[in-house]
Amino acid sequence: MKHQTGVAFPDSASVLSAGRDVHALITELFPICRSLTGDGVRATLARLRELVPLDIVTVPSGTAVLDWHVPKEWNIRDAWIKDSGGRKVVDFAASNLHVLSYSAPVHARLTLDALRPHLHSIPEHPDWIPYLTSYYNESWGFCLPHRVLEALPDGEYEVCIDSTLADGELLWGEWLLRGDTDDEVLLSTYLCHPSMANDNLSGTALLAHLAARMQGRRFRYTYRFLFIPETIGSIAWLARHQADLGRIRHGLVATCLGDRGDSTYKRCRTPSTIDRVVEVVLRDSGTPFRMIDFFPWGSDERQFCSPGFDLPVGSLMRTPYAEFAEYHTSADNLDFVTSDALGDTLAKYAAVIDTLELDGVYRNLQPFGEPQLGRRGLYQRLGAQRAQKEEKLAIFWVLNLSDGKHSLVEIAHRSGLPFRAVRAAAEALHAVNLLGPVDVS
Amino acid sequence: MKHQTGVAFPDSASVLSAGRDVHALITELFPICRSLTGDGVRATLARLRELVPLDIVTVPSGTAVLDWHVPKEWNIRDAWIKDSGGRKVVDFAASNLHVLSYSAPVHARLTLDALRPHLHSIPEHPDWIPYLTSYYNESWGFCLPHRVLEALPDGEYEVCIDSTLADGELLWGEWLLRGDTDDEVLLSTYLCHPSMANDNLSGTALLAHLAARMQGRRFRYTYRFLFIPETIGSIAWLARHQADLGRIRHGLVATCLGDRGDSTYKRCRTPSTIDRVVEVVLRDSGTPFRMIDFFPWGSDERQFCSPGFDLPVGSLMRTPYAEFAEYHTSADNLDFVTSDALGDTLAKYAAVIDTLELDGVYRNLQPFGEPQLGRRGLYQRLGAQRAQKEEKLAIFWVLNLSDGKHSLVEIAHRSGLPFRAVRAAAEALHAVNLLGPVDVS
Amino acid sequence: MKHQTGVAFPDSASVLSAGRDVHALITELFPICRSLTGDGVRATLARLRELVPLDIVTVPSGTAVLDWHVPKEWNIRDAWIKDSGGRKVVDFAASNLHVLSYSAPVHARLTLDALRPHLHSIPEHPDWIPYLTSYYNESWGFCLPHRVLEALPDGEYEVCIDSTLADGELLWGEWLLRGDTDDEVLLSTYLCHPSMANDNLSGTALLAHLAARMQGRRFRYTYRFLFIPETIGSIAWLARHQADLGRIRHGLVATCLGDRGDSTYKRCRTPSTIDRVVEVVLRDSGTPFRMIDFFPWGSDERQFCSPGFDLPVGSLMRTPYAEFAEYHTSADNLDFVTSDALGDTLAKYAAVIDTLELDGVYRNLQPFGEPQLGRRGLYQRLGAQRAQKEEKLAIFWVLNLSDGKHSLVEIAHRSGLPFRAVRAAAEALHAVNLLGPVDVS
Repeated sequence: MKHQTGVAFPDSASVLSAGRDVHALITELFPICRSLTGDGVRATLARLRELVPLDIVTVPSGTAVLDWHVPKEWNIRDAWIKDSGGRKVVDFAASNLHVLSYSAPVHARLTLDALRPHLHSIPEHPDWIPYLTSYYNESWGFCLPHRVLEALPDGEYEVCIDSTLADGELLWGEWLLRGDTDDEVLLSTYLCHPSMANDNLSGTALLAHLAARMQGRRFRYTYRFLFIPETIGSIAWLARHQADLGRIRHGLVATCLGDRGDSTYKRCRTPSTIDRVVEVVLRDSGTPFRMIDFFPWGSDERQFCSPGFDLPVGSLMRTPYAEFAEYHTSADNLDFVTSDALGDTLAKYAAVIDTLELDGVYRNLQPFGEPQLGRRGLYQRLGAQRAQKEEKLAIFWVLNLSDGKHSLVEIAHRSGLPFRAVRAAAEALHAVNLLGPVDVS
Repeated sequence: MKHQTGVAFPDSASVLSAGRDVHALITELFPICRSLTGDGVRATLARLRELVPLDIVTVPSGTAVLDWHVPKEWNIRDAWIKDSGGRKVVDFAASNLHVLSYSAPVHARLTLDALRPHLHSIPEHPDWIPYLTSYYNESWGFCLPHRVLEALPDGEYEVCIDSTLADGELLWGEWLLRGDTDDEVLLSTYLCHPSMANDNLSGTALLAHLAARMQGRRFRYTYRFLFIPETIGSIAWLARHQADLGRIRHGLVATCLGDRGDSTYKRCRTPSTIDRVVEVVLRDSGTPFRMIDFFPWGSDERQFCSPGFDLPVGSLMRTPYAEFAEYHTSADNLDFVTSDALGDTLAKYAAVIDTLELDGVYRNLQPFGEPQLGRRGLYQRLGAQRAQKEEKLAIFWVLNLSDGKHSLVEIAHRSGLPFRAVRAAAEALHAVNLLGPVDVS
Repeated sequence: MKHQTGVAFPDSASVLSAGRDVHALITELFPICRSLTGDGVRATLARLRELVPLDIVTVPSGTAVLDWHVPKEWNIRDAWIKDSGGRKVVDFAASNLHVLSYSAPVHARLTLDALRPHLHSIPEHPDWIPYLTSYYNESWGFCLPHRVLEALPDGEYEVCIDSTLADGELLWGEWLLRGDTDDEVLLSTYLCHPSMANDNLSGTALLAHLAARMQGRRFRYTYRFLFIPETIGSIAWLARHQADLGRIRHGLVATCLGDRGDSTYKRCRTPSTIDRVVEVVLRDSGTPFRMIDFFPWGSDERQFCSPGFDLPVGSLMRTPYAEFAEYHTSADNLDFVTSDALGDTLAKYAAVIDTLELDGVYRNLQPFGEPQLGRRGLYQRLGAQRAQKEEKLAIFWVLNLSDGKHSLVEIAHRSGLPFRAVRAAAEALHAVNLLGPVDVS
């Protein structure tokens, strides 16, 4: 029962400092125009490799992956709409959300009426640019504030999208941090969105900093970090690893980690240990949180938890996608995410890692009656005290529930005691040979 | 996965129109003096045969059925109490509730004191006539408003009950609508009560109209409609069919269907599929409803759910018997039931039929990751949309939970989506070979 | 299904009278200075033997019992602290709580500063003397009101504890009331506390009176009453009976039975029949109560429910230890417990005994449909009545759930009917051969 080096943060100052680092990385990555494929993904991964020694995995366009084929690679240099006076009324240079992602190249003159089916806006948020894609359906289009759209006078417009859609590759970043065992923890996020901070840069930046923090330390579990394009990336990754998936013991999809809302955990499709681990971490954090059941839409947990795989992968977020109005719009900007929230979420991910590392199933080696704790220095000096301290209660709980069936996390959950107190009790009992590990693998 | 012809009503106008038809039939049947046996039952079944080609099943008096014997047949022509002045103070011609059902014939002169033990009233509802029976305990009696009873002066009275209690037969109506399979759905109601509208004419009239609506259509299940005398009728029917009961997959007892209260579903003794089907139908109806657990008294579910049979039979009602003050009194009259309520209940029974027909267990044929819906025309044209439509969510849910263990009704229940959306998703997925049926029989 | 002689009290007068008897016994036992061992325990057991023919079991000091050793025997004659003027400022004769239990002998002069580490008080309850022990850690000390401690002037004090700590014995009282079967019900309480009324004299006195009440009656179960020193007593008892523990079918630890709070039941570690029995008894009592889950600290249920034994032993109390401020202080005095509360608790223990005796699993011998109750005199004379009486409902419930899987207590719980009504229904059905016992052992 050697105590693993902790990943969790020692104090609130270090949490806030880490949150600022994550926010700074988001700020750096924000201007890059990312999509499923292309140079934006390459640039983003290059920056992440300064923090973590990611492997870059590539899959050529056209490769069959499960039920899908890897799409063509998309790159874009410029795009705009000019009015009849030659003034740019929509300009990619101002925001990369202006272009429907994966737009085919176009250069044409059209009347407003002919252009209109290619223009997308959100009437209920007239100042925001929506984010839309057309990955598997060749098309082109512009996204713009509804107020701008409404103000466009009739007349002829010149549109230009200077993009390429050609054979190339899908690519992602992957880092395997080998632990003492082959049992894997999967930490997955996606990096296919253009300039939006919460979805998805918070996931990208936070997991990169978590990985950097874990680098060089020794762990029981092997940790696999994925920085992939959403959907096609997880599909392709799953296609390549179909034979090894049995190693995955726990997993989390990281998304929407920096907004001001409460932490929210979306459970695995089939109830799993990670659900309880996250619940105990959130409970012990002392901040409000929500546990919600699995639903089969959202991010890459859709793929990991498809019925054929049914992996133990949940998703630890703050406000879930689609519950915040700014979702998939230009309002999901650098002000929408805060260093406080990012630091808090990073600390919770770190606590999840520590809890996974320190969890275990033990057996009380003196299960008949209570062992005499006093002579082992594990009982208060005077008996009959009116209130028992948390560490004493933790010792009673660990002794009573360590029957080979309850993990420390389960004991923390059932007793209402902090995981750290339960773990400390287990260590103290192990040290005096009252507790022995159980191999449950 | 051929789509069965729907029984459900297309719109609220057709619902109300059907409700009026049911109310009209109740009105026609109301004056008939029914009991466990006798000409009132014959007359009622004769009228129902104008709507449905019922078989009339008869069992002679004295026949042993399970733990019971079929009683003598009871018929009545007239009954009254005259005061010393020869004035009728109680008259069967005014209400057939005035006679204790199954009263033996009597013609005598008695003092009020001697008569009193034969007179029954409800002090707390002094204007109502109670309904009482004495089926298996030969006796005679009159039921009358408490106010009338209290006003009777002392003196001698002449009482007359012109009834017969003689060997004859028990009879009931039964209709078997053969479906593509031998799996049966049992729809049972009773027709042994005299002039009361909710209990039991609402059940009799509503099931007759439901049967008429289903006639001539093709179904997967075989439907068995029973119009029986309560208790002894279900006992006799069960005695005759003891060897075939394994065919019954689902069942409902129809009672108290026309009052102004909310729909109430009483679950089967052992949790069954029909419980969930009705719950989803009631939820999807958008009207308030209650789900209550089985209890071993009430109507014929007592027999169907006795521990030796334990059939999957629930009861879909409005206000349960004994919860409304008018229960088993003359106040359960034609005003107590409304066309609105009857139409609404009939529509719910029809929706239960449709849901049973359209339910099924399927298997996702591409269970590893999400299949690419876009190239099969099952995904919105543009990705990353801020809100997903119900039909898309239904597709995700059906794909994710179709692992051979969850029926469409279960998926509708767990997802919170309407059953019709889930079924439509299943059809769309089946059409493109992403879903295949699972034989769970 | 012969009806066992009832232990339960016939009326509230007999309950209150019994409560007064329990309070009187508490009052008698209150002055005795008890501890884990010693003459106080002997004197207490001698008094109890006037009520119940207890066996006195002894175990020599030093004997190994499970993970423990029996401690030396402690006896005390006198103890005091005198100030520099020779006045006793703390006097064992005034309250035996003044001495730290198991204090080694001492006679010395000390300055207040040197004495201070040996003085214990409760600052938040400055008028109360705390109760503290030092069983397995040789030491000495005094407990006193904080107000007294604060008022002690500096200077020299003379302290004297005239105690002995020497080889001797652990002893306890045990009574086995043999029943028709070897299946045992364990009723355990402890008698190691000095002058405190609720914890623990209420348990000692109440179980003694319960035992006295049961003496001479015939039971199905064998009842074992234990009056033991807490912890080491149950450890020693368990060590001696390790081979026989399989006989224990149900058990209760009696503690804190006389305060004015509501009844509280602490469930067994593993859900057990006794949990449901007590729940139904408390529900039927009509008084407020709480059901709480097992936790692995408290009284001797800690030992009985240690994971190696995991016996079906719960604890029926009033306010749990540590939830009342007076716990383990001089304020847990004769006014803190009331005859009303003691009588009420005793009546509940008696009802638990009766319920255990009268519970059972039966099988409906006519499970196909309802048997015809009318011809067996088990149905009301007239049918169709608007409200069914409790005894009729109980008959329906017993018939329906007696499938060999539900005990009468389970039927009472599920139906919401009083256990006595359910039991009466079972007897009535058994009398007419509609119900037969099922051997579930």
